[in-house]
Amino acid sequence: MRSSLLIVLILTGLFIRIEGQNLPGDDNLKTASTNVRGAQYPKITKDLRVVFQIKAPDVQKLQVKMEKVYDMVKDDKGVWTVTTDPQVPGFHYYFLLIDGYQVSDPASETFFGWQRMSSGIEIPEAGTDFYSIKNVPHGDLRSKWYRSSVTGEWRRCYIYCPPGYDDNVKKNYPVLYLQHGSGEDERGWGVQGHVDIIMDNLISESKAVPMLVVMDQGYATRVGETIQAPRPQGGTASSEQSAFEEVITKDLLPFIDSHFKTLPGKNNRALAGLSMGAGQALQISTRNLDKFAWIGAFSGGGRLTPESDLKTVYSGAFADASKFNKEVKLLWMGVGTAEGPGVKNFHETLTKLGINNKYYESPGTAHEWQTWRKCLYEFAPLLFKK
Amino acid sequence: MRSSLLIVLILTGLFIRIEGQNLPGDDNLKTASTNVRGAQYPKITKDLRVVFQIKAPDVQKLQVKMEKVYDMVKDDKGVWTVTTDPQVPGFHYYFLLIDGYQVSDPASETFFGWQRMSSGIEIPEAGTDFYSIKNVPHGDLRSKWYRSSVTGEWRRCYIYCPPGYDDNVKKNYPVLYLQHGSGEDERGWGVQGHVDIIMDNLISESKAVPMLVVMDQGYATRVGETIQAPRPQGGTASSEQSAFEEVITKDLLPFIDSHFKTLPGKNNRALAGLSMGAGQALQISTRNLDKFAWIGAFSGGGRLTPESDLKTVYSGAFADASKFNKEVKLLWMGVGTAEGPGVKNFHETLTKLGINNKYYESPGTAHEWQTWRKCLYEFAPLLFKK
Repeated sequence: MRSSLLIVLILTGLFIRIEGQNLPGDDNLKTASTNVRGAQYPKITKDLRVVFQIKAPDVQKLQVKMEKVYDMVKDDKGVWTVTTDPQVPGFHYYFLLIDGYQVSDPASETFFGWQRMSSGIEIPEAGTDFYSIKNVPHGDLRSKWYRSSVTGEWRRCYIYCPPGYDDNVKKNYPVLYLQHGSGEDERGWGVQGHVDIIMDNLISESKAVPMLVVMDQGYATRVGETIQAPRPQGGTASSEQSAFEEVITKDLLPFIDSHFKTLPGKNNRALAGLSMGAGQALQISTRNLDKFAWIGAFSGGGRLTPESDLKTVYSGAFADASKFNKEVKLLWMGVGTAEGPGVKNFHETLTKLGINNKYYESPGTAHEWQTWRKCLYEFAPLLFKK
Repeated sequence: MRSSLLIVLILTGLFIRIEGQNLPGDDNLKTASTNVRGAQYPKITKDLRVVFQIKAPDVQKLQVKMEKVYDMVKDDKGVWTVTTDPQVPGFHYYFLLIDGYQVSDPASETFFGWQRMSSGIEIPEAGTDFYSIKNVPHGDLRSKWYRSSVTGEWRRCYIYCPPGYDDNVKKNYPVLYLQHGSGEDERGWGVQGHVDIIMDNLISESKAVPMLVVMDQGYATRVGETIQAPRPQGGTASSEQSAFEEVITKDLLPFIDSHFKTLPGKNNRALAGLSMGAGQALQISTRNLDKFAWIGAFSGGGRLTPESDLKTVYSGAFADASKFNKEVKLLWMGVGTAEGPGVKNFHETLTKLGINNKYYESPGTAHEWQTWRKCLYEFAPLLFKK
């Protein structure tokens, strides 16, 4: 009995010490904005560590998978805790690993990413409020069904309509087509990206002109073809890429132009996207320079090296710089500095070729939504202005 | 070696037998429409059993929690399987239990229910297509931010706008305010309920008049009050109920009337809801008969017995039947036959009191979305017609 008691005391003392290290005082902790209503944890410390606390007495092994895997520690009441390293501000997907099996966390909202519903946590960025809701006029975000002749299915797209869109019945608007990345879908820009709030804020400060933003699902399978199994690395097969291009040009553009008050012509149309969507934006726009005069590539796309055959790469669009510069109002690319050098190399190669382009770096951010929110914030003000 | 081989053969034989029992031929199986893109399981058999198959080699115990808890069986490759009993058609929340800890299934979409992001599975109903997307004119579903003077916060509501809403700039529309149940939120009717598709179908067949449907979050906490922790049984505290009533009458109604093309007056306004939302619809409408003339209560609300004090219950609205019948165009209630007798008793008590009301039963369905979809399908055609 005595030795058992001693062991209990040692273990308890040990646990308290661990708990004391792991859990700062509650006044330093803030419940994450991505928690579901009423969930107290995860919480965020002042130095942007995340504190997880989960009651799961019968679970054998519990870990949190964020930028790395953190082992949680269970107390004698079956409550598991862990405190992570300081996180980069922005939105991060994360998971629980229960005996190694990856699931989402019941305490957080889920978001379509990694080809599944994934937990997400919002780490606040001090001094940054361009994606916070403010007391300014608000537009709305509409989901709309349209029939695709290419896929033979009903597809859902989202359309951001700027403040006053319904009141100004005779006013027509330019359109930014804005695509998500691999493993995400048409919901991404509205939910993870806060596209409506970013655009409301930009428009209210007269930084961006009022525009529509159309967000479609970046996957398409032709009638009669079978859906490709998702690949671990993401992306889509080439037949799906060309099917998606046809969806955009044959189905979506005419649908938007006939159902919304749009300004006609390529000079009033932009195509941009992030990661896989950046590649799609570059491929589709360069093949359709009669339809899009503004191009944005966030964290992706740059399949161009000094060795590339300019006659074939990107449909030969970069073979004649002066022609390209005349046809395209803006070619813009952005990337987080914690990503690789691919986008910067692309920018430099283009510049050497005499192709006008703009390049932006988001400081300290990775291949994540904070980079893409900042890209949109930098890119949208340049659109439809010359 | 020989005995090991024998054991392997026995185990393999055993597994094949179990698999044979659990997994009907693939031609009998249909991937659930609620699966995330590319997920093969869960699948549904012709007799509406659900087949789950999950690879989780290191998990010790895996169960599926639907209308009851099913133990899954693991094979020697770490793949767990189970086939459920036949399910009632409609939408069901479900969970995985990993060592008893409840999480959502990575293979399915998640939906806000049970105060968390919950897995959902759609079981098809033969011969029923009123909530299937058809080749008819489609409206849209808009999310919109509005400022609440009551809660001091920005709130998000959803608005269904019928086909042609933007084209008919001079046409004004009646409004149905439609509330979710406890543990769900303003997303419920759009995502789980398919409100847009049901309304599109009803309107295209001229069964319902074109109307707006407004869906708000049924929770509200006054400025300075702390949020109530969710209760396991759901529902909200009484201070939150009255705060929500004020949000509806002081914030939301004026916001909708000033931002959308609405027809004025109580005769053009309906208030309905499901479960907790049914209670809110009855409480708020009977206290505000100057604002709502059409009332719907789906699977809830009936706090009225022969012993109730008619002067106080529901703000005395049922004390004078002829006055009520003159002021209210429609009092409608619906329930699934697999639910309790509460709503039917409420209907019968009201009828005995001389209160005009309509009562609907959804055959075989429980306290679930299939009941509420059918309630909307029966209720909406009666609105704004006399």
